[in-house]
Amino acid sequence: MALVRMIEVAEAPPEVRAVYDDIMKTRGTDWVNNFWKVLANDPATLRRLWENVKQVMAPGALDPLVKEMIYVAVSATNGCEYCSHSHTASARAKGMNEAMFAELMAVVGLANETNRLANGYRIEVDAAFLPKV
Amino acid sequence: MALVRMIEVAEAPPEVRAVYDDIMKTRGTDWVNNFWKVLANDPATLRRLWENVKQVMAPGALDPLVKEMIYVAVSATNGCEYCSHSHTASARAKGMNEAMFAELMAVVGLANETNRLANGYRIEVDAAFLPKV
Amino acid sequence: MALVRMIEVAEAPPEVRAVYDDIMKTRGTDWVNNFWKVLANDPATLRRLWENVKQVMAPGALDPLVKEMIYVAVSATNGCEYCSHSHTASARAKGMNEAMFAELMAVVGLANETNRLANGYRIEVDAAFLPKV
Amino acid sequence: MALVRMIEVAEAPPEVRAVYDDIMKTRGTDWVNNFWKVLANDPATLRRLWENVKQVMAPGALDPLVKEMIYVAVSATNGCEYCSHSHTASARAKGMNEAMFAELMAVVGLANETNRLANGYRIEVDAAFLPKV
Amino acid sequence: MALVRMIEVAEAPPEVRAVYDDIMKTRGTDWVNNFWKVLANDPATLRRLWENVKQVMAPGALDPLVKEMIYVAVSATNGCEYCSHSHTASARAKGMNEAMFAELMAVVGLANETNRLANGYRIEVDAAFLPKV
Amino acid sequence: MALVRMIEVAEAPPEVRAVYDDIMKTRGTDWVNNFWKVLANDPATLRRLWENVKQVMAPGALDPLVKEMIYVAVSATNGCEYCSHSHTASARAKGMNEAMFAELMAVVGLANETNRLANGYRIEVDAAFLPKV
Repeated sequence: MALVRMIEVAEAPPEVRAVYDDIMKTRGTDWVNNFWKVLANDPATLRRLWENVKQVMAPGALDPLVKEMIYVAVSATNGCEYCSHSHTASARAKGMNEAMFAELMAVVGLANETNRLANGYRIEVDAAFLPKV
Repeated sequence: MALVRMIEVAEAPPEVRAVYDDIMKTRGTDWVNNFWKVLANDPATLRRLWENVKQVMAPGALDPLVKEMIYVAVSATNGCEYCSHSHTASARAKGMNEAMFAELMAVVGLANETNRLANGYRIEVDAAFLPKV
Repeated sequence: MALVRMIEVAEAPPEVRAVYDDIMKTRGTDWVNNFWKVLANDPATLRRLWENVKQVMAPGALDPLVKEMIYVAVSATNGCEYCSHSHTASARAKGMNEAMFAELMAVVGLANETNRLANGYRIEVDAAFLPKV
Repeated sequence: MALVRMIEVAEAPPEVRAVYDDIMKTRGTDWVNNFWKVLANDPATLRRLWENVKQVMAPGALDPLVKEMIYVAVSATNGCEYCSHSHTASARAKGMNEAMFAELMAVVGLANETNRLANGYRIEVDAAFLPKV
Repeated sequence: MALVRMIEVAEAPPEVRAVYDDIMKTRGTDWVNNFWKVLANDPATLRRLWENVKQVMAPGALDPLVKEMIYVAVSATNGCEYCSHSHTASARAKGMNEAMFAELMAVVGLANETNRLANGYRIEVDAAFLPKV
Repeated sequence: MALVRMIEVAEAPPEVRAVYDDIMKTRGTDWVNNFWKVLANDPATLRRLWENVKQVMAPGALDPLVKEMIYVAVSATNGCEYCSHSHTASARAKGMNEAMFAELMAVVGLANETNRLANGYRIEVDAAFLPKV
């Protein structure tokens, strides 16, 4: 149960409804997921986050599916249940099949293992890895 | 400074040298990075981790560059300095340009923001996101 | 379900009951929350933690509500469900309204985003930020 | 050393310079800190983050110093070196004295301790803490 | 609910069944826990992880119960619910009593507290602690 | 460089000196490490933390070396540099040899890997692992 009540589409005040409409139009869906219905208690944050998501997740130098899988990788690392479910669903909708999901999880798991070995042993960065900026 | 001394290539005992040789051959390089020279104090772990990395990072359902960028995403999320430097270097070697790196970081940053909002508000997972397994 | 059984007030042995009584008296309540009933399996830890909480959360240089909101910020960042619920409830009892909670969450979310950008890009600390100690 | 080169004020292209000017004007300073000079490699992200920071950290339901201390709390929890230095400096500039900083750190430390006890024991949330939404 | 369906023992294809049989034989049990039934969707990862667990958790320089308690310490720190339950159950099966579990949790909690104080204050490592490697 | 200046032994006011003396006496050393010299800016926190460390790390149901290694496991998982150095040094002083350290790191690494797989796949806890409390 969320710590604040959710603002449903039917009861949304105009400034919230405008964001909801843009979410549904952008995604081609007729519903809004709980994340936004919780943020809607604070319309300025709702709008800010939605504008951020639109900008960051828009087509760019990376493939949209790759971006969604990076989102899943971060969510698994942070142990965020909501985010793991919602972004895995999004990645599947964008074409991630089971073999790709399994491989994504395998990389995430291994990276978390080697991250802790590097941190635990306090390994110094090789000069060859330092950027020549 | 690492918490244990590093085993250099020239002084490596045979079982360590065999792994070092495989690392250099697989990567087409003539040097071994610090991560492995630290693990080499424990040859069984050195071999285990290298076999894991080879299996997980081998070509599969995902593009090798995508896998490397997922590694960078996890490393940035965990705040692992060594891993951020080494895997960003690897991703660049595999073709990641500056626009791709910037977009990768933007997704990682945003995902960490929304992860905390989902966790902090304790948002319930939408039924539509639950898998039908 | 907790990994150990909870010690209810009615069955608490004297050394546990003494802490329970101090918790209820300090807070002006007639019940003890699950956190303490779990710790009560180890009376020395129960007492230690309660004494710590009393010392740290007592009035001091910071406003009690500010301290409670800092607790919520850490709990959201760590993804701790129990802590998010219990400390948000405490913060509300101390006067946090919905606008304050929304703003708190907004800061927590943004801080987690910029933390990962700073870590992921390995940005060097500006000399101007270093303390002159 | 950052993973990308920093864009100095003197060499900034117009769209970057516009953000730099707004940063300096908003803060009443004549320099820009490294965080923004790194992000400036990606002008769209530079602008997005700066607009986010301005909106989130603007005066609102919470005191600006409280918001800055919440930023420090998250940064300490995440172990972000850059963020700990920069936001502690900001909090000091906004009036945080040494007693307040010590108390902030004490709450952060204790919250991280009790977060792990709640998570490690898998303590169930008390019904009394659940919101009545 | 897991994000992928679980492969039950009765329906497991030969390469999965071989790992399941080794898990049950090694542990002297007649069932397989959910972790492996989820990984079984990706037989190569299933085998890789099981071989890793067998190698790392085998008798060595540390007592098997100590290793299991270290696993619990990491799981509590990461807030992993599945891992806290499964490895606490394993540790109990290997002889951890309630007093040992309570003491383990006490160390984990305190370590998380002092970790954040060290990180938040950015304390420099004492020369005496640096290894002479 | 720490965010606050360190209080050296020679300049410590009486209430700080009393804690320093107890630290040196308890450990049988003639110096105090940076962690305490930073906390000494806040004498109440200095005393509270030192009393906590003494209570939690005292001989009990677990071997002192086991407790120190659990501390190292948490520190590696959190990526805390100061803590990794100081507690690894302590563990070595209490008898941890290189084989034990290597095995400790191997468990920590693997636990972080499997934690992320459990969290990423959102694996449900097996009924057999739930406590019968």
